[in-house]
Formats: sequence, structure tokens, C-alpha cells
Amino acid sequence: MTGDASSSEVAARIQSSFDRQAFMRTVGARLVSVEPGHVVIEWPFSSDLTQQHGFLHAGVVAAVADSACGYAALSLMPQGVAVLSVEFKVNLMKPAAGEHFRAVGKVIRAGRTLSVCGAEVLAHQSGKETTIAIMQGTMMAVRDNASLVD
Amino acid sequence: MTGDASSSEVAARIQSSFDRQAFMRTVGARLVSVEPGHVVIEWPFSSDLTQQHGFLHAGVVAAVADSACGYAALSLMPQGVAVLSVEFKVNLMKPAAGEHFRAVGKVIRAGRTLSVCGAEVLAHQSGKETTIAIMQGTMMAVRDNASLVD
Amino acid sequence: MTGDASSSEVAARIQSSFDRQAFMRTVGARLVSVEPGHVVIEWPFSSDLTQQHGFLHAGVVAAVADSACGYAALSLMPQGVAVLSVEFKVNLMKPAAGEHFRAVGKVIRAGRTLSVCGAEVLAHQSGKETTIAIMQGTMMAVRDNASLVD
Amino acid sequence: MTGDASSSEVAARIQSSFDRQAFMRTVGARLVSVEPGHVVIEWPFSSDLTQQHGFLHAGVVAAVADSACGYAALSLMPQGVAVLSVEFKVNLMKPAAGEHFRAVGKVIRAGRTLSVCGAEVLAHQSGKETTIAIMQGTMMAVRDNASLVD
Repeated sequence: MTGDASSSEVAARIQSSFDRQAFMRTVGARLVSVEPGHVVIEWPFSSDLTQQHGFLHAGVVAAVADSACGYAALSLMPQGVAVLSVEFKVNLMKPAAGEHFRAVGKVIRAGRTLSVCGAEVLAHQSGKETTIAIMQGTMMAVRDNASLVD
Repeated sequence: MTGDASSSEVAARIQSSFDRQAFMRTVGARLVSVEPGHVVIEWPFSSDLTQQHGFLHAGVVAAVADSACGYAALSLMPQGVAVLSVEFKVNLMKPAAGEHFRAVGKVIRAGRTLSVCGAEVLAHQSGKETTIAIMQGTMMAVRDNASLVD
Repeated sequence: MTGDASSSEVAARIQSSFDRQAFMRTVGARLVSVEPGHVVIEWPFSSDLTQQHGFLHAGVVAAVADSACGYAALSLMPQGVAVLSVEFKVNLMKPAAGEHFRAVGKVIRAGRTLSVCGAEVLAHQSGKETTIAIMQGTMMAVRDNASLVD
Repeated sequence: MTGDASSSEVAARIQSSFDRQAFMRTVGARLVSVEPGHVVIEWPFSSDLTQQHGFLHAGVVAAVADSACGYAALSLMPQGVAVLSVEFKVNLMKPAAGEHFRAVGKVIRAGRTLSVCGAEVLAHQSGKETTIAIMQGTMMAVRDNASLVD
């Protein structure tokens, strides 16, 4: 679906869009892997991102999972389209405690307009990795809007 | 369900917990109204919170909606319990563009352990207010954990 | 969005599509109200539709709520398109006990392709009506498929 | 978590509860595999279960996926508790066309009270198997209600 785009062109496209997500910078997140339909983002714990008990705020967990889903979807979309989140659902299975975190986003079904994606968020604490949240959501390819390109 | 807690005691309890949410401070959010089962949070646009097209990141929208839901639920919970998000689902109906934003969280069903909540997020732009997202989620009263109190 | 379609033309279109939903017949459901963006469906309790404790199966509750959402969305779509469910999320707030049930579906945001809808399901028991479930979902207008028309 | 229950005791418990789900009988569904935290249910296409275009109704797809999730969760719960669905979210990726269908439910996180589950629904058509829907949901162990036992 990416036409002639090579793997490295896809990765460069995703990296460039990711770099424009100021919120990922605020979170301290970085893109650690981009494969077609599969994206990994990591970020450290920060006391600026917490809820009232000192865990990462659920919204931060959701935000990075959403970015992982969105870029997994974009990695399979043709040049010239942009990606927007239609909806997502997240189950928070454990409090988000840890030194650093990882969101793995995957495309489950890539459609022309809508892509269904899943993400898993893992916390690393004291050398152990635990799944703390899962997401299921829908990403949309936007074609008709010249001001939105990724 | 709040026993003898007066309206102002409930509001003070919610405000105190909200003030401990460092991420709400990072977002620039403030609690503008607390009624039993109904909480309103507002925050300004900030270029530190954006996704790649300059809109607010969907995760930020979800984060404030989640806080509004959580505190709406907490406002009906007895003293001594804490609130945690079990899961939420958000539909992003319009790109989050605007000068400032408002999340309105409501309890739809308050149970002893689980509360079902809904939130609406509105954007204010050029004097007009538009609903940009809705959330439906589940909040949990945590009773068995002395380290978690709200 | 319905062009020149009168209210009664919209209602007739919805009724005709509803009548082709064999599963609604299996459930014993009937369309009791169609307004633009707002549809009500009712059905009686039946022991053929229960889960293991004798309540209505959550999937039956979801099915009728989904039909109510889908037809609320279709009521605002132009002639010649069909409606399909993209996704939905349901919170089951009380066991589905009662003599008869009512699902009220509403369009929250009607878009050209995607419509965001909400539904509420109510149970009538011993003269009392209780909300037992709420749904939030996305419906799609299908335009490119001659074999799918509603 | 199942104490001394052997695999075959767990399977017998699930089968017995499944057999009391009248709606699964209406659907023509049968339990084809029960492993701890993993349940498979199959059912044939039936024209009594369709939506307006002749596909299986999304609610039927959701119903069997919900049963698969619920029984996957129950398979890890101690004797004496019952299972109820708290909420679920389903993405319908393809129209539900096929000769027969299979729902595979898995526990992703088993908690004392809440279990997070996922399900996949596959359609078999002309010898090919396709994933048509995925579910993510929350199941609850009910302990305090003598009238509800599974």
C-alpha cells in the first residue's frame, strides 16, 4: 500500500511527523522502531506527567499509545495523506508505575480510509517489564484536506 | 453516598486531589466547577500539547476528559476511598483547534465499586463553542489500599 | 443532509431497512419512533435471548442499541447510501432484567462518512424504567458499493 | 486462581454455564475449546441472525465474542463466583459474511474483581478464514450475590 516507498522512506516520513508532535516532546517520548504496520515509542517517567497518586496519568498512557497506533497506521498509508484518530478505547490494567515506558502500536486491519489498530503499553520497573494498558482504536486516512499532510 | 459531606467538603476534597495531579498543572488545567456527580475542567491551548498538525493531541483531550470523569465519580464516593480509571473510550469528532477547552464529566451510574461516567470536551474558538470529543468510561473506587487515598 | 426527503420519507426508508434486519425480528423488536437523528426501538423479554443467569444477554442489548444508533445515523444520510457499524462500546450498568426494553439511539455528530452516535437502553420492570446500558459508537455511510443500499 | 480445580473441572463448569445461555442456543453456538484463560466458540451462519444487507448482525458478532470473553475470564475465577460483563468495545473490520464463524476469547489480565479480555471473531467463507471483528472488554467476578453463581 505504500507504493514504491522503501522501508527507510516510510521510517523517515513517520519520524518527520513524530518530530512535529510537540506533545511527544513534552512527554519526552522518542520513536524507537518503525516497521510497516508496527511502531514502538518509549518515554521516561516524569513527575510532570502524573496523576494524584504519583502514577503516570492515564491520559499520558493513552496519548503515547494513540501516537503509536496512528503512526503504525500511517506507515501503511500512501504518500500525500494524513492520519487522524477517529476513536480509541484503553483499558488501564495496572497503575502506571515505572522508570520508563514503552508503547507498541500495530495495525490489525488496514483499510483505504479506516485502519483498526491495537497498542500495548509496558512499564519497566526494577528490571521487570509489565503490560499496564491496552488500546483498541480506529485511525483515518485524510485525503481531502491539503492543509493536513503527514 | 457521601454521607454527611457537605457540598463544600466534597469540592475541597476534589480540589485537593486535583492539585496533586501534576499532569493537569502541565496542561494548565483548572477545576472550574464541582457538583455531586458533575465536574468541569478548563484549559488553554498550548503549543506544547499539540500533535503534528498543530491541533491538541488526542491524548491531552482524553487526559482532561478522564480527569473530569474521575473527579465526577470521586465526588459521589465516601471518604477514605481513592479513584482510579478502569477504562475509557473517546470519540474525536473534530480536530481539537481553539483558544481554550472545557471538559464536562458526569456520573451516569454510581456503583459501590464501579461508576460509569461520560464526558464531553468543547473547544472555544473565535467566540464559538463546539463539541470536539465525547468519552464513555468506568471509574473504580479503591478501598483496600492504604497508600491510595483521595 | 437528507435533501428534500420529508420526515415521512425518512421514516419509511428506515422502516424498510429495519424490516430487512432478520435479527430484529428474531429479537421481537419493533421501530417505535424515527425522527431525524433519533430512533427508538422496543422489544419484549424473551427466554430465548438470555445469558446464564436469566438476564438478557449483553449481546442482545448491544444489538438493539447498535440498530438504534445505525438507524439514527441513516436518518441523516442522503438517499443511495447504506449504513454499516464501524465500532461501538457498551457499558452494561445493570443486569438486563425486565418485561420489556427500549433502546434510544441519537446522532451526536453527523459527518459525511462517519457519524458518532450514542444509545441508551432502558428496562421496564414492574412499572419502573431503569437505564441498564449506554453505547457510544461510530457508524459509516457506504457510498461505493452498489450492492449495499438502505 | 482456580485452586485445585483440574482442567476438566474448569471445562465442565464453563460448559454448564454456557448451556444455560439460551441465547447461545438461539444463535446455534457451541463451545469448542476451553483452556485456562482461553475459550473458543463456533456457530453457523443463519438467516435469522442477519442485518439488512444479509450479513450477520453486529450484535450477534458482539454477543458471541462477549460470551467467549466472559468464559475465558470465568475459567480463571475461583468456584462460587459468577461472571458478568462490565463493558466491551468491538471494532467491526469486515462485513460478517461466511458459512460459519469462530470467536476466540482470551484473558489479558486476570484480577480479583476485574478481568480484561480480548476476543477475535473469524469468518470462514469458501475455505478461507478472515478476522472480521475484535473486542476488548472488562469482565467482573461477582461474589456478593448468592443468586448468581457460575
